[in-house]
Amino acid sequence: MGKGANSMGVKFDDSLSKRAHNFSAGPACLPESVMRTAAAEFCDYGGSGIGMMELSHRDAGGPVQNAMSQAAEDLRSLLSIPDAYHVLFMQGGAHGQFAAVPLNLLGDKKQADYLNTGFWSQRAMKEAARYCDVRLAYDGTVDNFTKLPSASTWDISPDSAYVHVCANETIHGVELLEDPVLPAGSPPLVADFTSTLLSRPVDVSKYGLIYASGGKNLGPAGFTVVIVRDDLLDRASPLCPSVLSYKLSAESKPVPSLYNTPPTYLIYMCGLVLQDLKDLGGLRAVQKRVRRRSDQIYSLIEASNSFYTLKNVDKPVRSMMNIPFRVKDGLVDGLEEAFCRESEASGIYQLFCHPLFPGLRVTLYNGVPDEAVNALYRFMVKFMADHVDSADRHAVPHHTPQVIPNRHALC
Amino acid sequence: MGKGANSMGVKFDDSLSKRAHNFSAGPACLPESVMRTAAAEFCDYGGSGIGMMELSHRDAGGPVQNAMSQAAEDLRSLLSIPDAYHVLFMQGGAHGQFAAVPLNLLGDKKQADYLNTGFWSQRAMKEAARYCDVRLAYDGTVDNFTKLPSASTWDISPDSAYVHVCANETIHGVELLEDPVLPAGSPPLVADFTSTLLSRPVDVSKYGLIYASGGKNLGPAGFTVVIVRDDLLDRASPLCPSVLSYKLSAESKPVPSLYNTPPTYLIYMCGLVLQDLKDLGGLRAVQKRVRRRSDQIYSLIEASNSFYTLKNVDKPVRSMMNIPFRVKDGLVDGLEEAFCRESEASGIYQLFCHPLFPGLRVTLYNGVPDEAVNALYRFMVKFMADHVDSADRHAVPHHTPQVIPNRHALC
Repeated sequence: MGKGANSMGVKFDDSLSKRAHNFSAGPACLPESVMRTAAAEFCDYGGSGIGMMELSHRDAGGPVQNAMSQAAEDLRSLLSIPDAYHVLFMQGGAHGQFAAVPLNLLGDKKQADYLNTGFWSQRAMKEAARYCDVRLAYDGTVDNFTKLPSASTWDISPDSAYVHVCANETIHGVELLEDPVLPAGSPPLVADFTSTLLSRPVDVSKYGLIYASGGKNLGPAGFTVVIVRDDLLDRASPLCPSVLSYKLSAESKPVPSLYNTPPTYLIYMCGLVLQDLKDLGGLRAVQKRVRRRSDQIYSLIEASNSFYTLKNVDKPVRSMMNIPFRVKDGLVDGLEEAFCRESEASGIYQLFCHPLFPGLRVTLYNGVPDEAVNALYRFMVKFMADHVDSADRHAVPHHTPQVIPNRHALC
Repeated sequence: MGKGANSMGVKFDDSLSKRAHNFSAGPACLPESVMRTAAAEFCDYGGSGIGMMELSHRDAGGPVQNAMSQAAEDLRSLLSIPDAYHVLFMQGGAHGQFAAVPLNLLGDKKQADYLNTGFWSQRAMKEAARYCDVRLAYDGTVDNFTKLPSASTWDISPDSAYVHVCANETIHGVELLEDPVLPAGSPPLVADFTSTLLSRPVDVSKYGLIYASGGKNLGPAGFTVVIVRDDLLDRASPLCPSVLSYKLSAESKPVPSLYNTPPTYLIYMCGLVLQDLKDLGGLRAVQKRVRRRSDQIYSLIEASNSFYTLKNVDKPVRSMMNIPFRVKDGLVDGLEEAFCRESEASGIYQLFCHPLFPGLRVTLYNGVPDEAVNALYRFMVKFMADHVDSADRHAVPHHTPQVIPNRHALC
């Protein structure tokens, strides 16, 4: 698929291939093989002479419905999603789900439990407060957002409709790396997996609802994957807009996610990403690669004798997707700007953190190739050597930068 | 832009160019020049070595924010949108707006006026009924959805928060072709322009709010354009989800539509479509082409001596975007299926109507090239000649099918 030339004359010439090293935290780098396939068939899907984004979603059994069904099936297969869950493609991103969750799940309850682990948890809590009382099952402010304690310590109320956790705080670098086990009789666990889904195997049965927006590991920004347990489909408020209704989306015919026109092209792109992950050996193989690459960057920072510094995040919940760090603790004027400027001069882009937060961030979503991580590693070593104070020179690692295999040698 | 080869090696060879004739009612055919440009720079926007869909929307003054601002500016220019209006890019399509309109505009009112002109009006009314009393300013059921009476006859209540009209009923073939003038002191007029925006100049000052989803004239499905008068931004209900809030979208910094991650790639595609329309001479030129092409199909059907039949829609509101019709009034078993089968054999696709409604439909959105309309015209003449009863043979037009200039000769 996507090789050679199509009927619109879009062709490849591998000798011309050149990609920048793109570390955007989202919308993020997509796998090169996915981008090539999509470009090759952009104007002509499957030899039809029509682009995927120009095809009707109402053509029963047609290419759009088939692509949507295949993407849902591939996600089920990759995550071993139990039969008792629906896989939905919705719009509005994670922010849409911040409202959709209380609007769909409160039922006759007036309260929900939230873990406040950082910026994205707080966005979810702020939105939920429109619809219910938001109760804190854990308040990360006391730990300066460096922890995500074990579920056994969460303060969960039986009167809450659900317990909400953000599985990866991209700005604070705190990630849920093991699926929580809640006490028997607890409300259903709801998790925002936006920037971590597809980075490891997940025991979906531990959750009542998982949602994740595009723009990270799943594909482009503008669609949202919702994995919802069927017994939670009948609790929606009459005030829930139809476009945020899990039930309407789950029950649309002939396939789910067709109550209203879906973002067909973005779901097609997600399907290409999922197929790519299956070809690479599934999520156990992905998890090995994720661990290897995050270890590579964390170990360099830790070996830098405080030239590069991390937040003091608990190691068991240190994010493997987003590594926020400072240069010289951000205390040397212009040094972090120089880091960005010089990294771009080396063809390494989008290492800035969120505009609301200072510092830098390495994002290691699946679409980022190993070559880019290796290039970044080498750049960080060189930047340190160029800018470290003479007193700190001993901090520069003398070993050759560790070079890791490329993504196609994943397994 | 988009010519030759880019650094990913995506190249064009015009000799290979071949496009099907695609009449999808949505997601719809996009201009070939737009599709070619997008395909050529798919993996490498502006020589960056990064695809537009892989770039961060948080890069202040970066390519994504620039593309969003340029698209908004081009829409302002094409529609001569007054300064007192915001142009927003949102998610959720028209169905999202069916909820967003009451959630944003009710203020302290408990009621809104709706014109029931068909399927899409009813979807909007059904959604609005979640949030307010829906009052009928006109009930099209009495006219079997064949009319859209003059605004002077609408039954408007001063107690209503707004008056909602669907500007194009794609299934019934009824279109608002002149901007209504409401009596002084009327509530603001809200219009769903989903399948007609960009088909003619619009006097935006006649409306408080105009919305239109992608998938028709604007670009791919998955984003929504909202043009809202600034004085309507402060009426939102606290129950309005943030992703549907006009105010949050209008006030995001450094550019609007950034409160949450927008569907960046789809907005970029919209920008290419808007630039294409500007290159073609703007909406007066587009309107001439729209009239010429719809006349071509309507006149053929009317000259067919009832081999092809139209609904009895009032001529002044006959849709120029969507022409629903039957073959032999749908009374001859298998004849409409044969029409679809034989049209596809001629490389003419997606002429089926909405699954919920029988019959056929010609969709003439801007992306459909004149060559496709001419091919369809010729096919319809031939199909009639092949299938008309001998008694009806005199109905076959004897003149050569009118061939109209291609889109590049628009002006």
